[in-house]
Amino acid sequence: MYKDMAGFLENDRFAAYVGIKLLKVEPGYAVAQIEINDHHLNGVNIVQGGVLFTLADFAFAAASNSKGSVTLGVNANISFFKSPKGKLLTAEAREISSYKKLCGYSVDIFDEDRDLIARFSGTGYIKREKLEFDGEK
Amino acid sequence: MYKDMAGFLENDRFAAYVGIKLLKVEPGYAVAQIEINDHHLNGVNIVQGGVLFTLADFAFAAASNSKGSVTLGVNANISFFKSPKGKLLTAEAREISSYKKLCGYSVDIFDEDRDLIARFSGTGYIKREKLEFDGEK
Amino acid sequence: MYKDMAGFLENDRFAAYVGIKLLKVEPGYAVAQIEINDHHLNGVNIVQGGVLFTLADFAFAAASNSKGSVTLGVNANISFFKSPKGKLLTAEAREISSYKKLCGYSVDIFDEDRDLIARFSGTGYIKREKLEFDGEK
Amino acid sequence: MYKDMAGFLENDRFAAYVGIKLLKVEPGYAVAQIEINDHHLNGVNIVQGGVLFTLADFAFAAASNSKGSVTLGVNANISFFKSPKGKLLTAEAREISSYKKLCGYSVDIFDEDRDLIARFSGTGYIKREKLEFDGEK
Repeated sequence: MYKDMAGFLENDRFAAYVGIKLLKVEPGYAVAQIEINDHHLNGVNIVQGGVLFTLADFAFAAASNSKGSVTLGVNANISFFKSPKGKLLTAEAREISSYKKLCGYSVDIFDEDRDLIARFSGTGYIKREKLEFDGEK
Repeated sequence: MYKDMAGFLENDRFAAYVGIKLLKVEPGYAVAQIEINDHHLNGVNIVQGGVLFTLADFAFAAASNSKGSVTLGVNANISFFKSPKGKLLTAEAREISSYKKLCGYSVDIFDEDRDLIARFSGTGYIKREKLEFDGEK
Repeated sequence: MYKDMAGFLENDRFAAYVGIKLLKVEPGYAVAQIEINDHHLNGVNIVQGGVLFTLADFAFAAASNSKGSVTLGVNANISFFKSPKGKLLTAEAREISSYKKLCGYSVDIFDEDRDLIARFSGTGYIKREKLEFDGEK
Repeated sequence: MYKDMAGFLENDRFAAYVGIKLLKVEPGYAVAQIEINDHHLNGVNIVQGGVLFTLADFAFAAASNSKGSVTLGVNANISFFKSPKGKLLTAEAREISSYKKLCGYSVDIFDEDRDLIARFSGTGYIKREKLEFDGEK
């Protein structure tokens, strides 16, 4: 299982391109991190919303897919509370419900002061397929 | 005004890093586009949700800030309907409400077949500051 | 089919209790209306958010279930733009996507001046069961 | 303060009409409850989404307005995880962020088995006005 997850995560080329790292993953739980650089900023010099969303969505994918079935994000809602302080942002994804083919996750994003800067709520659709990475591109 | 917007958009380093282009911008309206490459894919070989979100959020920022005041995204909701076909994704942002300090935008994301693949709803908070880019970092 | 929908809608006891009427229903489309009275107001004398949500959710249910399969709401997002003027509120629900087991609807809520006061986005899960009301409680 | 809140809550005629009770309120925190009856059901005999939304929105209003300033809901997102069991539903609202004029709340809705059946995320806009109820209609 862990081997598959490693493959799954290595394969997420966008998360890698953006600079996201996976710190921890367990079934239904994951922690991801990013170090903010100049290329993560928007036109008013704060972290672009897409960076925060990508970080949270990746933590959601890691946590939900770690249960062994492909889970696709169907809907996501993100609230932005304040501008982050410091360079390091951490997202912590946690399953709050899983029932039949649907699951719900909550992802908290903290800045370096451990202030909650954004919260993401994700709804996933659980496919029957199992995650298989070996031999796949 | 247009000069300021150009500065605003040139300054959005994350959108540029991801490969997003602005095709059109008018007060309350914008169209942005991206050409999908391998580094935009996730672990199951489809476009990462963060790419779609960033594209939509950038179109929302362009449309809302084109009215002359800094507008910050407060909340965003995105529904993913289907996997995109083709290489080119287009996001069209449109103001649906603006009242006192709050505004609402809807952003539709289309694939190359012009199928609606995702819809983003953004809530913005309108700050009193005017956009001034000249001489700013 | 229409007979079933009528049953479905008669059966929605909460919508009836709140005072909602269905003006129009077609597959993937519905219009619902409510006349605001004192018992729809909240503690600061404006229409309670739950009234607007219930109106939109009912229009969403009418539109999505009119396609013949039971559709359950999985996620809904509502943005409130301004306080309504006048007594009559109208919600117009429209399918924006339907693919395999998931569908997306957008519901616009207008006041008597035909100003858009709120927008609801609903994600539905399409069950295999057909709607059958005859003989059911 | 408590007297004002009592007025605020007595004044929420829609919550009262629907049958919602406030069990607990502290600054930034509230618990509300409802006993489900036949008139809370929808066309497929489960609790109407509008009942759950109204319960959560009321708990959010109680918690956010208990801090002394009028707070208006700007956006709300609700995910429905499963059908409730039993008659009694409880919503617990908790502030997760408050910064300048915006606040974020999370509201969990539990059924009688204490299973989480839905989660509501609310974004509020904090007005400068203080809550004053005495002598008001």
